Amino acid sequence: MSVQEILVINGPNLNLLGQRQPEIYGYDTLQTIEEKCVELARELNVSVRFGQSNHEGAIIDLIHEARLKSAAIIINAGAYTHTSAAIHDALKTFDGYIIELHISNPHAREEFRHKSWISPVADAVMAGAGAYGYELATRLAAEKIKAK
Amino acid sequence: MSVQEILVINGPNLNLLGQRQPEIYGYDTLQTIEEKCVELARELNVSVRFGQSNHEGAIIDLIHEARLKSAAIIINAGAYTHTSAAIHDALKTFDGYIIELHISNPHAREEFRHKSWISPVADAVMAGAGAYGYELATRLAAEKIKAK
Amino acid sequence: MSVQEILVINGPNLNLLGQRQPEIYGYDTLQTIEEKCVELARELNVSVRFGQSNHEGAIIDLIHEARLKSAAIIINAGAYTHTSAAIHDALKTFDGYIIELHISNPHAREEFRHKSWISPVADAVMAGAGAYGYELATRLAAEKIKAK
Amino acid sequence: MSVQEILVINGPNLNLLGQRQPEIYGYDTLQTIEEKCVELARELNVSVRFGQSNHEGAIIDLIHEARLKSAAIIINAGAYTHTSAAIHDALKTFDGYIIELHISNPHAREEFRHKSWISPVADAVMAGAGAYGYELATRLAAEKIKAK
Amino acid sequence: MSVQEILVINGPNLNLLGQRQPEIYGYDTLQTIEEKCVELARELNVSVRFGQSNHEGAIIDLIHEARLKSAAIIINAGAYTHTSAAIHDALKTFDGYIIELHISNPHAREEFRHKSWISPVADAVMAGAGAYGYELATRLAAEKIKAK
Amino acid sequence: MSVQEILVINGPNLNLLGQRQPEIYGYDTLQTIEEKCVELARELNVSVRFGQSNHEGAIIDLIHEARLKSAAIIINAGAYTHTSAAIHDALKTFDGYIIELHISNPHAREEFRHKSWISPVADAVMAGAGAYGYELATRLAAEKIKAK
Amino acid sequence: MSVQEILVINGPNLNLLGQRQPEIYGYDTLQTIEEKCVELARELNVSVRFGQSNHEGAIIDLIHEARLKSAAIIINAGAYTHTSAAIHDALKTFDGYIIELHISNPHAREEFRHKSWISPVADAVMAGAGAYGYELATRLAAEKIKAK
Amino acid sequence: MSVQEILVINGPNLNLLGQRQPEIYGYDTLQTIEEKCVELARELNVSVRFGQSNHEGAIIDLIHEARLKSAAIIINAGAYTHTSAAIHDALKTFDGYIIELHISNPHAREEFRHKSWISPVADAVMAGAGAYGYELATRLAAEKIKAK
Amino acid sequence: MSVQEILVINGPNLNLLGQRQPEIYGYDTLQTIEEKCVELARELNVSVRFGQSNHEGAIIDLIHEARLKSAAIIINAGAYTHTSAAIHDALKTFDGYIIELHISNPHAREEFRHKSWISPVADAVMAGAGAYGYELATRLAAEKIKAK
Amino acid sequence: MSVQEILVINGPNLNLLGQRQPEIYGYDTLQTIEEKCVELARELNVSVRFGQSNHEGAIIDLIHEARLKSAAIIINAGAYTHTSAAIHDALKTFDGYIIELHISNPHAREEFRHKSWISPVADAVMAGAGAYGYELATRLAAEKIKAK
Amino acid sequence: MSVQEILVINGPNLNLLGQRQPEIYGYDTLQTIEEKCVELARELNVSVRFGQSNHEGAIIDLIHEARLKSAAIIINAGAYTHTSAAIHDALKTFDGYIIELHISNPHAREEFRHKSWISPVADAVMAGAGAYGYELATRLAAEKIKAK
Amino acid sequence: MSVQEILVINGPNLNLLGQRQPEIYGYDTLQTIEEKCVELARELNVSVRFGQSNHEGAIIDLIHEARLKSAAIIINAGAYTHTSAAIHDALKTFDGYIIELHISNPHAREEFRHKSWISPVADAVMAGAGAYGYELATRLAAEKIKAK
Repeated sequence: MSVQEILVINGPNLNLLGQRQPEIYGYDTLQTIEEKCVELARELNVSVRFGQSNHEGAIIDLIHEARLKSAAIIINAGAYTHTSAAIHDALKTFDGYIIELHISNPHAREEFRHKSWISPVADAVMAGAGAYGYELATRLAAEKIKAK
Repeated sequence: MSVQEILVINGPNLNLLGQRQPEIYGYDTLQTIEEKCVELARELNVSVRFGQSNHEGAIIDLIHEARLKSAAIIINAGAYTHTSAAIHDALKTFDGYIIELHISNPHAREEFRHKSWISPVADAVMAGAGAYGYELATRLAAEKIKAK
Repeated sequence: MSVQEILVINGPNLNLLGQRQPEIYGYDTLQTIEEKCVELARELNVSVRFGQSNHEGAIIDLIHEARLKSAAIIINAGAYTHTSAAIHDALKTFDGYIIELHISNPHAREEFRHKSWISPVADAVMAGAGAYGYELATRLAAEKIKAK
Repeated sequence: MSVQEILVINGPNLNLLGQRQPEIYGYDTLQTIEEKCVELARELNVSVRFGQSNHEGAIIDLIHEARLKSAAIIINAGAYTHTSAAIHDALKTFDGYIIELHISNPHAREEFRHKSWISPVADAVMAGAGAYGYELATRLAAEKIKAK
Repeated sequence: MSVQEILVINGPNLNLLGQRQPEIYGYDTLQTIEEKCVELARELNVSVRFGQSNHEGAIIDLIHEARLKSAAIIINAGAYTHTSAAIHDALKTFDGYIIELHISNPHAREEFRHKSWISPVADAVMAGAGAYGYELATRLAAEKIKAK
Repeated sequence: MSVQEILVINGPNLNLLGQRQPEIYGYDTLQTIEEKCVELARELNVSVRFGQSNHEGAIIDLIHEARLKSAAIIINAGAYTHTSAAIHDALKTFDGYIIELHISNPHAREEFRHKSWISPVADAVMAGAGAYGYELATRLAAEKIKAK
Repeated sequence: MSVQEILVINGPNLNLLGQRQPEIYGYDTLQTIEEKCVELARELNVSVRFGQSNHEGAIIDLIHEARLKSAAIIINAGAYTHTSAAIHDALKTFDGYIIELHISNPHAREEFRHKSWISPVADAVMAGAGAYGYELATRLAAEKIKAK
Repeated sequence: MSVQEILVINGPNLNLLGQRQPEIYGYDTLQTIEEKCVELARELNVSVRFGQSNHEGAIIDLIHEARLKSAAIIINAGAYTHTSAAIHDALKTFDGYIIELHISNPHAREEFRHKSWISPVADAVMAGAGAYGYELATRLAAEKIKAK
Repeated sequence: MSVQEILVINGPNLNLLGQRQPEIYGYDTLQTIEEKCVELARELNVSVRFGQSNHEGAIIDLIHEARLKSAAIIINAGAYTHTSAAIHDALKTFDGYIIELHISNPHAREEFRHKSWISPVADAVMAGAGAYGYELATRLAAEKIKAK
Repeated sequence: MSVQEILVINGPNLNLLGQRQPEIYGYDTLQTIEEKCVELARELNVSVRFGQSNHEGAIIDLIHEARLKSAAIIINAGAYTHTSAAIHDALKTFDGYIIELHISNPHAREEFRHKSWISPVADAVMAGAGAYGYELATRLAAEKIKAK
Repeated sequence: MSVQEILVINGPNLNLLGQRQPEIYGYDTLQTIEEKCVELARELNVSVRFGQSNHEGAIIDLIHEARLKSAAIIINAGAYTHTSAAIHDALKTFDGYIIELHISNPHAREEFRHKSWISPVADAVMAGAGAYGYELATRLAAEKIKAK
Repeated sequence: MSVQEILVINGPNLNLLGQRQPEIYGYDTLQTIEEKCVELARELNVSVRFGQSNHEGAIIDLIHEARLKSAAIIINAGAYTHTSAAIHDALKTFDGYIIELHISNPHAREEFRHKSWISPVADAVMAGAGAYGYELATRLAAEKIKAK
């Protein structure tokens, strides 16, 4: 059987990772994180692909694409986490394993970050582990897609 | 006088119609529905045009375009129904007849689908009639634009 | 097989149709609307019967009666739409197709008209199409009871 | 030292300025307003640039661009003001001076316009001054970026 | 010109007046009150008629009847005051002068008596004056229908 | 001393007992239940009378009648439990013992069934014991009216 | 026994009566109203005194003064009705009869006028009878202080 | 088959029964009640065991124990009824019949006693029947465990 | 025509400007600000007058006075902004142009500062521009009263 | 070093102490309390001064005065406690020690007395200790200003 | 007469006093505080006993014990203050004087600390006086139990 | 340096793991999980210790103990997650790294499981990864305590 793909989706403002509020989000850029995950994926015998957009519609398009190509989605939807019913609906059309990811712990921050449209359709949630969370999520996704 | 146009706008995830949760949304694809409506419109002596996008901004662009070209809008805004104040504002700039449409009955589903940003600016609402609802809405729009 | 009956129930104050706030509810009386629907039903090979009452209990009695005699209910419960849990319960005992109907669009009016006790137990909702909505609802009911 | 730039961002439906509800928004088009501000900016020895989009993501892109090029942002986010946590987050990554602008006074209008996602991250708010508000905001931005 | 009629409607449980919680509602029966008002009306050159029912629908019927026969309505809707949107709607169809009446002061009692469906469609409200309030209301109604 | 009467009032839709959602309400009809209670009452040396109506006003009339004839009321007000302030008020005029009864457990069902207008004026509440609950309530009423 | 005094207190902005929004508040000035009430009081064998202030503290001082001199208070507290817990507390120290008065019907106006701090401590409420309400209130106060 | 056990769990402050607010809770002590229930159980051919603790954790331990030993639980959780999600979770792990019991009627008391964490996981609820309620509950539990 | 007056009203605690929390409110005193505005007004050919009080009633008196003497009001009502319905009502009696002003941006501060009683009756709102906001507001008021 | 002053501020209706609801507030007048505190202060080697007003603005003036003259404020703001954002703001400008005082325990009284605008800016709160609370507060204030 | 006992109950985490967040709770340990109170009690001719537990049930047990042995309770229930209805109920069974105590001022801290289950059943509340508050509370309790 | 300890705390009902609702919580028992974590910890050169209790107070005691002995806490507080302010406070006294863990995803379950008292004081949150989550959390804790 061919290697299975994990799609990692990053939402608005995450292109600024490493530059924006590093005391909260850390000094790693998305590219560094991607490289670490790709390497880890290789060890675990799965593949990993990264996508980022500031556009809500483009994130929905990525999820639709994953319906055909990916076995799991790791999604850090940034602030769309708290407002997007449309991403919620898109994820419901996806049959694979879904992990919601946040670099910081949203519950320890402003009130509006406590409500998530993604949690109710996610299989797992991982928050506050910093950039290292992407590696843990990759490990979890790999575990779950092999167990199927 | 030339034939008047009805613009049918479909929002996020509706491109998946026929594939996604068919027990809720039915087995018709958007294309089949479009064909039936075009034929019905011809009988009723109006014309019908379909547009779909997963992007909130693109839906606003479609509405602005309708300001110049269409006599009525039938809009199924998908999950943007429940979150988009911007589509609400765009529809308020449109002088023609507006019908809000849902394939299923949102009030018989999750709480968040009970709030609509479109209802207060729509002339009529049609929900729960399945794919057949598009035909009824076409009939209603035709009736109303002829009555003017 | 014999012709199937659609029961159209009208609630409080709808006996005043045509006299009360015609700028909102139009100039048709209930009788005119009934005549149009009866004719349309004949074309569609179903039958239609109208009932009206200002009494919540009498509306429940009508629904119980429909359990034995009718294949579909079209209900415009007037203001009881917004307050009656008992009509809600009565409708749940009915196995046929249920359409909630409003002449105007309640969501474009006062806040208290936004809450409906009927929507969660209805199969379809039709609002804002004026008196013409009764004809569309008849058409939809006919379509659905034939499809069974 | 070179002249400093003020970026003026206009959100959804503002491309219709001058055509849409002129009794609320006035008869000036965005282009006329831009011309007046450019002239005023020249007098005050700063520069002004205008951007408009109906897409939430495109507005975020504009703000990211301003991080490199502009000393101040004047933002009229239209209806995204009331729903966009992502624009809120984007503005928090911007170090310069931020002015929230509304042509009309949102607090004298519908309830949903009372909540702003931009106010908590803006330095100043200006509302209800009509098209003339763009000039006042330009004046204020100029004052503040010179004071630094 | 013939003498004009004031219709006084009493709702559920008011048939028990004089027997029920006399420390709150007093010792007068509805009949005694009616006699006093009839006499006062004669002095003021108007006529007064009383109606009572425990049925919400019957109260609506009385209001519909008043559309043809009465110049003013004085309504003490008892507990339906706090729950009946249908009586609210019925009163909106009445063109004459409307006075909401309560024997005790509902705002000094339980929370649920603070909300009234009648106040927003009444011209005047009179509460807490005891049985004597019916006389004051008769006086006010007479004043207003003569002033027209 | 003569035998004391317990009045058992059943509200809207309870005439359908045994036919409607038997997986929730059981297969006993109201008549079977009545027969069991009458027999049990005879053993306990009290009498039992049953009344049912779909009309809120008729239920109030029954309660007023009980003021003169009954020592206790067992009331299953169906959906009026959750909406009727008027029944609440009527029960407050009754001096005897009051038991609120539900066949199923309303708190394990939809949200709107959690609010009861009857609980605050009842002496006891019994819910979820099925048809057998009528017998337990009869037993409790008999115990209490003898203890007086 | 000497003649008993009724104190009529008018709150903020009521000094403008007759000039401000006459379509709501009428064309009578406070002085005209005072003259009518003084005359009516003479007929009824009581006395009436008027006080007005825009200061919350001054209204409290007036109420304290009434503790020694007046048998009843008629109070139209203007907008302090909706915000003043201190006037609420002051009125609770007064043993005589208290009538809350509003010229228009606050429940038919903006939401914030629906909450009253005075209603829970008033014996009676009179609203919407226009300037004529002051006369009815005088009549009611006279009736009650004689009945003691 | 051996006799089946009903476990009766009493929560915080119920050890004071008979001493604490007897006008609400009656003069019976827990011991007297236990004796009556044990006797009644013998007649009905089941057994009854009582447990009481002021500790939330100890009540959870009792429920876990019942998983192995008891066919039904009657639980009066005292004030933990209104706050304990953990007891709620523990009861969900129990397969037998569950009766929630209160000596007084919590809905006729303070607001905070209206919310129950136990009702949604109970099969039946019995409240307000005083100490006699334990006997009725024993009777119901016996009926239900025999019916299985 | 004579020069038109702009009245600038400052509410509670603003007499401490320059001493109190200068990191929020700046180092300018009210007197310095007044001097700058008077000079700017002279250039713009209007006049400016300043008033300050810690008393709610005194602020209402100032507004009443402005009805006769001023063409525009600039009001910084301090904390009364968030609690005073009476100032709200007073401003509604003023026919001229009204600008609500805040030195800091209330929406970036505590929750209770987000609600304003003045915004709904103001024509324009200006917040967060520091002491310089008084000059911008003067400029705006001058622009508007000349345009009339 | 000279003796330090503690300012004791009493708000609306507290001038009635000893006369008003003595079952709640006790029989001591403000003057008696003041005398006791002055004496206790002398023992503790500090000074105490009392001020009272029914005017919100006057209380703010007293606080401003304390900025120059007092080391601590003890404030019983009466009903302004629950409504005054302006007193809240004034207290924030005071650098000394602040004690909020209530004679009765507001939390054991009506709902609206549970919200305090003063608590968040007070260092300490003392409630329900009766008139004796003024002495305890004096003792606490003395302790704290000496500790500095 | 023998010396009367005051029981001082300390709840969860208070065993850490002196170690945990000393900038909020101070550097005194519970033992030091106990020693000071015991000495002060001796002077005032009463006795004082301290108890501490992290277990909600154990605190209830302490209160039950106080019913037999103590004349007053001083209770610092730590975080159980905000969640425990069971402690609330236990305190209601205690006839002596009750003082709620907090070392810091909960109203100046997080929202969840503003709600207290103990305040409504306490006679007095003392908060924010630091460790010194235990001495003031001892003084108050002594005053009150002697006054009886 | 000696090996650092990670304390894993499990709350109410988690002793039933493997037996209770295995379709939600899986078939692993706590013991199996502990064994896997101990082994993984050995590889990562840290140590792991497990504690479980159904008692809120015992969990607080465990946290206090960790203050002296552990470098990190992994806590699955079961239903106490949603109600315990006391555990929240206890965790705030702990200086090491804190991970909140849930076996299932609480946000995809009942409403009351969406509120967490632990999230605001946790460094990281991990939910929905099943029993495997304990291993991921161990890995994360090891990573973080080595990074210090």
